[in-house]
Parts: sequence; C-alpha cells; structure tokens
Amino acid sequence: MTDTLTLLSRTIAARRDADPATSYVAKLHAGGPPLIARKLGEEAVETVVAALTGDAKDLTGEAADLIFHLLVLLDARGVAFADVTAELDRREGMSGIAEKAARKT
Amino acid sequence: MTDTLTLLSRTIAARRDADPATSYVAKLHAGGPPLIARKLGEEAVETVVAALTGDAKDLTGEAADLIFHLLVLLDARGVAFADVTAELDRREGMSGIAEKAARKT
Amino acid sequence: MTDTLTLLSRTIAARRDADPATSYVAKLHAGGPPLIARKLGEEAVETVVAALTGDAKDLTGEAADLIFHLLVLLDARGVAFADVTAELDRREGMSGIAEKAARKT
Amino acid sequence: MTDTLTLLSRTIAARRDADPATSYVAKLHAGGPPLIARKLGEEAVETVVAALTGDAKDLTGEAADLIFHLLVLLDARGVAFADVTAELDRREGMSGIAEKAARKT
Repeated sequence: MTDTLTLLSRTIAARRDADPATSYVAKLHAGGPPLIARKLGEEAVETVVAALTGDAKDLTGEAADLIFHLLVLLDARGVAFADVTAELDRREGMSGIAEKAARKT
Repeated sequence: MTDTLTLLSRTIAARRDADPATSYVAKLHAGGPPLIARKLGEEAVETVVAALTGDAKDLTGEAADLIFHLLVLLDARGVAFADVTAELDRREGMSGIAEKAARKT
Repeated sequence: MTDTLTLLSRTIAARRDADPATSYVAKLHAGGPPLIARKLGEEAVETVVAALTGDAKDLTGEAADLIFHLLVLLDARGVAFADVTAELDRREGMSGIAEKAARKT
Repeated sequence: MTDTLTLLSRTIAARRDADPATSYVAKLHAGGPPLIARKLGEEAVETVVAALTGDAKDLTGEAADLIFHLLVLLDARGVAFADVTAELDRREGMSGIAEKAARKT
C-alpha cells in the first residue's frame, strides 16, 4: 500500500498547473519558490510555537501544514519526495552501522 | 511494506532513552522540546535558503534534516507520526470534495 | 536626540494596555508571548526571503517589521530595549579588544 | 549622541572587507547573503525559543544576536540602517494619525 506522503506528493504534482482560483497548490506555484519557501518557514515557526506552548492537537495540525508545504516546495524545485526518503534511508543505514560500531567499543 | 518515515519514527522512539553520548536522538531528547524545536526551526531556515539559492542536492539534504527533526519533536511531545498522516488524509479527503464541488460550479 | 528605536519601544510600552480593537500592539499583547513570538518568527522568514529574492525596498520593509515585533516581544517579556543595546555595546567593546589583539600578532 | 545601532552599523560596514580569519563580520560577508540570511533566521528561531522557554537574560542575548545579524544582512544587501528607522518613523507617523482618528470616533 502506498503511504500517505507519497500519494500526497503525487496529488500535489497533479495540481501544479490547475487553476489558482480553485487549487491552493496551483496558487502557491503561481507565487513561485519565494512564496512557497516563505510559507514553509512560517509553518515551521508555528510548529515550534505549538511544540512549546500548544497541546498535541495543535502540534499535529502544524506538523501536517509543515509537511504539506515541504512537499509543495520539493515539487516546485523538481526534487522527488522519494529522493528525500532515499537520503533518510541512506543516513539511517550509516547511523545503524555507527551505532553498532559504538556498541562494540 | 512499511514506508521510510514510519520506520524512522519507530527507530527514533526506540533510541529516545539511549545513551546521549552515542545516540543523536537521545542527545536531542536530553535537551528537551526547547532544544528539539530550535533545531527544527534552524533546519527549516536552511531548507528555505537551499530552496532559494541551492541546488537539488542541497534541498534534498535539508528536507531530510527537517523531516528527521520533525519526527524527533513529535515523539518528544507524544504525538504519533500516524496522527499527522491521518490529519493529512482527512484534509486531502475534504480537499478532494472541495475540488469536486468547485469543478461542478 | 533620542533615537527611533528607543522612542518606538516607549510608544509600544505605552500602548500595551490600550484597546486591542484600535491598537495593533495591544492586540499582540492580548495574544501573549506565543502570538508575538510567532509573528517575530514569521517576519524573520520574510526578511530571509526578501534578502535572497527581493529588492532593497522589500528588505527595508521586512527589516522594519522584524524590529517592530522584536520590540513588542521584548516588552511582553519585561526586557528593556536598553538592555539589548547595552549587551551589544558590551560585546562590541570585547570585539574591539579582540580585533586589537589580533592586529598585534 | 549617536545611538548604539547606528554606531554598530558603521562598524559592520567598516569591517566588511577585513580578513575573514580575524573578523566575524568579514567571515559572514565571505559567505554572502545566503549565509547571512541563514544566520539571521537561526537567531530569530533562538529568539522565539528564548522568549517562550528562557529567562530575561537568554532573551536579551538572543535579541542582541538577532539585531547584529540583521545589521550585517542589511549592509550586505546595500540597505542603510537609517532607511529602516526612517520606514519605522514613517509608519509610526501614520499610526499616530490612525490612533488619533480612532480616538475621535
């Protein structure tokens, strides 16, 4: 089964050239990377504030906003979400080795 | 097959109480939400700068850092990653309905 | 002559308890540090984006917004603007000594 | 008497072309707007976290860092600090008129 973020990144790519009047994704794309990056930064600030002063529901909502805008930004700059997860897999592989090495010493 | 982020969120939860001297996750947890939230915010700023001035590889690396620290922050505040993807699914469902409604008019 | 930021910090303190319906400062204070800190963070993101993609006028406007919200945040947390400039004077004094020392060697 | 920030902005301009090995300002300039903007964003995040979880001394130090990096960024993009204070004066003038108008009604 395909996971939510992979599906969402496909939906975002499909809406890229939709009508900005009816699609939020298309509206963001019309503003280009400066607008999308600004929105991502603002959602990150809201995530920080929610994590420090809000409840679990606030943080859940802000984290969802943050991920959504990150996927739009990646798409706008031509980076596949799969490349980001591949990078996380690669690091996790290295980190696993590092943890094993650390355990031996 | 379980996706990368779900696996990574489990690994992060498993390392929460490891030795801060050998585990970066444990080190972040030792600093608590203020440290983790600060790191998340810094990675978001780096993502913004990479999106506006860097290449695809820079953005891929910063996006991976941002997601990693978001997963640590969620775990630190007791929010399951599955709750965030459920929230994204819920919104996408609503958004799909809104798009259909918009198409009709 | 008293400088702009010192005068502005006094004006902000004077408006703290005004009617949120007519004063933006009072409205921010009504939201407390979480709201003011969020606004500061958002203005910082806009300053970053303006510095990397905007013109001099954009950056001037965003920098003014950033300073304004910083002064409101300081006031909300009971930190005098004069304490911040005193800290900058103190560091600059140390930095001057360091630059002199560096020049000798 | 010239205020601290005006003096500091002059010092920063004077150090712009110093040796990056001995001057932090010159080191930042060597990295260009992407590095300076990133540092500004990071200091803003630290200011947000200090305002929400730190004490007055933490916030004073982070606010000083934020202002310092803002002055370096303005200088790097050719914006005079005096232009920013002029913009704040202009807004405050308008805001004063708005407050008077609001008081009458």
